[in-house]
Amino acid sequence: MQEILETPVLLLDEVRMMRNVERMQTRMDALGVAFRPHVKTSKCLEVVRRQMAEGARGITVSTLKEAEEFFRAGIDDILYAVGIVPNKLDHALKLIREGCRLTLLLESVAMAEQVARHGAEHGVCYEVMIEIDTDGHRSGVKPDDPVLLDIAAALQGGARLKGVMTHAGASYDCNTPEALQAMAEQERSRCVAAATLLRNGGHACEVVSVGSTPTALSARHLDGVTEVRAGVYVFFDMVMADVGVCTTDDIAISVLCTVIGHQADQGWVITDGGWMAMSRDLGHDSHGYGQVCDADGQPITDLSFGKANQEHGVLQWTGDGGIDITQRFPVGSSLRILPNHACATAAQHGQYHVIPQNGGEWPVWPRFNGW
Amino acid sequence: MQEILETPVLLLDEVRMMRNVERMQTRMDALGVAFRPHVKTSKCLEVVRRQMAEGARGITVSTLKEAEEFFRAGIDDILYAVGIVPNKLDHALKLIREGCRLTLLLESVAMAEQVARHGAEHGVCYEVMIEIDTDGHRSGVKPDDPVLLDIAAALQGGARLKGVMTHAGASYDCNTPEALQAMAEQERSRCVAAATLLRNGGHACEVVSVGSTPTALSARHLDGVTEVRAGVYVFFDMVMADVGVCTTDDIAISVLCTVIGHQADQGWVITDGGWMAMSRDLGHDSHGYGQVCDADGQPITDLSFGKANQEHGVLQWTGDGGIDITQRFPVGSSLRILPNHACATAAQHGQYHVIPQNGGEWPVWPRFNGW
Repeated sequence: MQEILETPVLLLDEVRMMRNVERMQTRMDALGVAFRPHVKTSKCLEVVRRQMAEGARGITVSTLKEAEEFFRAGIDDILYAVGIVPNKLDHALKLIREGCRLTLLLESVAMAEQVARHGAEHGVCYEVMIEIDTDGHRSGVKPDDPVLLDIAAALQGGARLKGVMTHAGASYDCNTPEALQAMAEQERSRCVAAATLLRNGGHACEVVSVGSTPTALSARHLDGVTEVRAGVYVFFDMVMADVGVCTTDDIAISVLCTVIGHQADQGWVITDGGWMAMSRDLGHDSHGYGQVCDADGQPITDLSFGKANQEHGVLQWTGDGGIDITQRFPVGSSLRILPNHACATAAQHGQYHVIPQNGGEWPVWPRFNGW
Repeated sequence: MQEILETPVLLLDEVRMMRNVERMQTRMDALGVAFRPHVKTSKCLEVVRRQMAEGARGITVSTLKEAEEFFRAGIDDILYAVGIVPNKLDHALKLIREGCRLTLLLESVAMAEQVARHGAEHGVCYEVMIEIDTDGHRSGVKPDDPVLLDIAAALQGGARLKGVMTHAGASYDCNTPEALQAMAEQERSRCVAAATLLRNGGHACEVVSVGSTPTALSARHLDGVTEVRAGVYVFFDMVMADVGVCTTDDIAISVLCTVIGHQADQGWVITDGGWMAMSRDLGHDSHGYGQVCDADGQPITDLSFGKANQEHGVLQWTGDGGIDITQRFPVGSSLRILPNHACATAAQHGQYHVIPQNGGEWPVWPRFNGW
């Protein structure tokens, strides 16, 4: 069946994906928080519709292109979770005027003033979240930094403080349940602390938004949090398997490729799945360009994917020296590669080929890229 | 001018690009060989039209999607330079039946037999090149391997041997003129040796095709070679600057991004140009995710791009500790990043914004991705 597909091609296992979606939504329901999936992972309406149908409330986006595409498809509650800059305000304004309930993010007094001024000049009131840094990993204001009050004070006239949000990206470097629980609690407590500082300063701060896939799946309670965001959980990947929040059997996307040749003396199996099909994301540097599997998706631990050119994957046989790799993996045979990082691998493709559950046609779900 | 563009956005300096195109074509003309640019770098008709207008004869592609797109645009002499596999033969057949002069590549008796059989079954004669391994870097048959004669013998009926081709990808790891010249000579002499072996065995082998950007720009003579292929020279990048075949002033594409925040205590300047805009390609691991430049494209050597998230670049100030980076690189200000690997960075984008030469409008040149 797979052999009729031209390779390389991105496969999606819908059964696994739905299991992942249900697992997360059930957990969020039990923790008593709204769930706002980050759609940067799939950038696919068919996927996001299923997340919404299971109970998600609104979406998180990483680009205004995502906001635009999903708003056009009828999803209007959208958090743009990258710090806004002046060159994007006209685009944000256009979406809001068309009815999109778009929330912006920022982390400085300078941008708060510009957003408020832009809103006032154009007769809209931007809903704004302040980014909080809870793990020293990237952007955001420290939760006890009094500049939070200055930012909140600057959000007047054409802007309104809606809440605080944080992303504990450092959780990707954890790999024990204890470390993950501790990181989830740090993310929660520090973000709640920022909200408390703002409220004590006289500012309403209705939304407290936290999240990353590892912390969302590890938090023991989320007191004070109103919503959680997570993205990669929908597909999972080898990084999440390394972190310990999934197994390879949960990974819902893979790249199907075909053997095009060998260098038998080197133990190399060469495929048509190179870095263009996988991305250059090496994850935790423990699975090369991804985990090699047979055509049915079962890992082949003796074949490592250490080298890639644009349209060539070079797989190294590390097992028994007695076998003839040209016979074991003949030219024209299929392999599947589990991605290190689902967001990065999926972004190399324009669509998902959905594995048919009962044979038959392969549904094709389009995705988009770019800004 | 740049500030009206929503960031991140891929900029193209057409003046630099044309200088690169002319430099390569002039060199190929002087060496007395046909030049067949590899269009995998740009995947853009506006770029390829300019390469053809300067004297290129035919194109090289890395996917059948490229063959399809450029054939539809009127370019019919196309070498598909990745080993063919059975699942792509129907697509190749369709292109050939529509009039495309498509040449296929392979490196095994098994595929030669399948291609010949497929051609015979469908009443076409596939033009086929055999891939030669001249540097131990990836695919291909060793130039003195008698299996070359078996492959040639299998190309009968529905297939015809057109020639031999090689790509000295190992040249990317050279960094002196002497090493580059030696690699170019190795690529040339070994590919010619394979042709000689075939001819001595009674097989016509009209085309001897070699190439990579570093070897094409370094070869002292190309006796016995009929055509050269190169791709990345059209834009150049930091890897080619490391190799020594260009300077940063030759690099024709860059990613324009905007400062969205800081972690002043860490010396971090955070931008909206993350790995989605740059790719995860770290090149020779010497410029982080790319060389940071000011808005006009002048390198800023004290700002290194060591860390990237999907839509965040984290730049580290490594210069004078006395400066206030929030003032030197304020929120909303522009930076440009020169790519490590032009093919990888360009593939993250759907179009090129061409820098206006005399002010005015920005031409937008579309590119395509995928298979």
